Amino acid sequence: MTPKIVRYLAEQQPATPCLVVDVDHVEARYHALRDALPLAQIYYAVKANPAAQILERLVRLGSSFDAASIGEIHQCLAAGAQASHISFGNTVKKVSSIREAFGLGVDLFVFDSEEELAKLAEHAPGSRVFCRLAVENEGADWPLSRKFGTTVDHAKTLLLKSVELGLEPYGLSFHVGSQQTSTTAYETAIAKVAMLFTDLSEAGIDLKMVNLGGGFPVRYRDDIPEIEQFGLAIGRAMTEHFGNALPQMLIEPGRFMVADAGVVSTEVVLVSRRGGKESDPRWVYLDIGRFGGLAETEGEAIRYRFRTPHDGLATGETVVAGPSCDGVDIMYEKNRVQLPHALSSGDRIELLTTGAYVSTYCSTGFNGFAPLAEHYI
Amino acid sequence: MTPKIVRYLAEQQPATPCLVVDVDHVEARYHALRDALPLAQIYYAVKANPAAQILERLVRLGSSFDAASIGEIHQCLAAGAQASHISFGNTVKKVSSIREAFGLGVDLFVFDSEEELAKLAEHAPGSRVFCRLAVENEGADWPLSRKFGTTVDHAKTLLLKSVELGLEPYGLSFHVGSQQTSTTAYETAIAKVAMLFTDLSEAGIDLKMVNLGGGFPVRYRDDIPEIEQFGLAIGRAMTEHFGNALPQMLIEPGRFMVADAGVVSTEVVLVSRRGGKESDPRWVYLDIGRFGGLAETEGEAIRYRFRTPHDGLATGETVVAGPSCDGVDIMYEKNRVQLPHALSSGDRIELLTTGAYVSTYCSTGFNGFAPLAEHYI
Repeated sequence: MTPKIVRYLAEQQPATPCLVVDVDHVEARYHALRDALPLAQIYYAVKANPAAQILERLVRLGSSFDAASIGEIHQCLAAGAQASHISFGNTVKKVSSIREAFGLGVDLFVFDSEEELAKLAEHAPGSRVFCRLAVENEGADWPLSRKFGTTVDHAKTLLLKSVELGLEPYGLSFHVGSQQTSTTAYETAIAKVAMLFTDLSEAGIDLKMVNLGGGFPVRYRDDIPEIEQFGLAIGRAMTEHFGNALPQMLIEPGRFMVADAGVVSTEVVLVSRRGGKESDPRWVYLDIGRFGGLAETEGEAIRYRFRTPHDGLATGETVVAGPSCDGVDIMYEKNRVQLPHALSSGDRIELLTTGAYVSTYCSTGFNGFAPLAEHYI
Repeated sequence: MTPKIVRYLAEQQPATPCLVVDVDHVEARYHALRDALPLAQIYYAVKANPAAQILERLVRLGSSFDAASIGEIHQCLAAGAQASHISFGNTVKKVSSIREAFGLGVDLFVFDSEEELAKLAEHAPGSRVFCRLAVENEGADWPLSRKFGTTVDHAKTLLLKSVELGLEPYGLSFHVGSQQTSTTAYETAIAKVAMLFTDLSEAGIDLKMVNLGGGFPVRYRDDIPEIEQFGLAIGRAMTEHFGNALPQMLIEPGRFMVADAGVVSTEVVLVSRRGGKESDPRWVYLDIGRFGGLAETEGEAIRYRFRTPHDGLATGETVVAGPSCDGVDIMYEKNRVQLPHALSSGDRIELLTTGAYVSTYCSTGFNGFAPLAEHYI
């Protein structure tokens, strides 16, 4: 929690639940990532937090953008980004969206299937295309592997076909999974990509770019490797496999850029023990839950840290749940949280490192609760 | 899918994804439920679908309302409901919400914990309160049991205490879980409730009401018992346990009232086989997914039926996923859907029985996709 956020919460006491994001801290993270991976071009994964204040700051810093939809492309353009700095990074795109993006000047598109490639050839003729490979997501808290990416063999077939279709076979991408806590995943994926580069080169196609995706982790409850370690591991692997002929490198950080810049401020609505006995588990219900923005607590995958007004006092194991009438609106039941015994209804507490994947997951009005308020400072 | 919706989709071809709800069908369901459970007062569970058109129709029919939040209470009042016909049915309520609801004339509140009871005594003095019991949710596709309700012993203690606190101990409630497909769950719960009625009567407290909750199922992919069977089973159990001294009966249907009145119209964005081989599983990506409203497909719990333009042609097992870059945005992978081989990008298909728990679960803008459009006809 940055000093600016601490001050803002103390002075403004904004109504809960709300998200407070320190945009200066996003800038600091951008610089940290550039320093750790100086050869990589940053394509911010807009989906992590598409707030105009964040996009505008990143445009000023010279960032490029990874957009998941035509809606996000419009958000980038509205923030001042150039179309040539936007990658349409969703392997699943509507024809109408491809056509509109192409018309707006976007000319970098991902694909991982034959049908998508045909759509790109028809509706974004001549564009640069890159193929997403499926890679292992072991070590990631929020895996992405089943839904996206194709095999090395099929990628080769499709990239060869892209030439026939009048597209420019530009590169390869992969994603090691979000909140990836191991550097090995990147190293293994780079080796795979490099082999396919060689293979395609022999077939007459010289790819220009490797998109390393995102996945760089932030600290929730567990410690994680520093970003420098990821930078070193990736640099080493790239040099090992590509030698002096390093291709253009893209990265698509989302969580890493914004998570640590944000804090969710929430109110305790109820503290109870189901059966009324001291031996019953203690439940704390907050005024934000899985449908108010904390969607990544599904399966208790992402485990946020808490800050309470009673920190330092004696704590006990606590189940943490949301305010809705929905039975699945429970954040932490298996991975209980150590929270102070002193906690009671009306207390204001903070969930740390919540700047990413919170505001947009929030439901429009589940159980009659308004969408999460957002403050960018 | 009602004839009115078929006609509307054919004539209007509204942009996808969208939800189309036949409000007349909601009225038909209301009557069906009244016929099946003539002694029960209907408190529509607003959370299932809070559209003004639905609430207004139900007000005209004489329905009462089960609200999960102060926001839903405002929605009911705006639709013309009287405060005396609203139950504040969330066991987890902010103090500010209790105070506001009480100020608006709501005087029926649920609780299941000591802290909540104290909050009600202070901020809604003299109100009618009912205690929620935890009951078995076996047989429910969307269970609610872990998060809500207390033990019979604790309920007794709390209801005795409510008198000391100046509240009116009004009744007991339970919830057998949403999309409950077995009548047994109700029968077992009623037996439990009846014992506590007797117990409390001996302690000098005569409760007046049993709130049977909701949970009444609708037909998705599997057949379910008719509502008449639930009506008969509940009626029999009530008579068996309460004899001629039947208490007031409340039911809180949500899904049953609106699910079957709605259809989600969606477009196929992509059809692919991950590795490009015929032996690879076929994936169909729609322009709506788990974060666009189909949240109840989490864990593949609720399994919607599909209608496609190629129905009747040869089908194959298909994984169905949403349009976002999120790896968990997969609706059916274990429970694959039989969909026509002929299906391809651009085809328009319908998800049936989607009038409940869709529009409000929808995210505000995940991955840059706009909230689900809604049409009430």
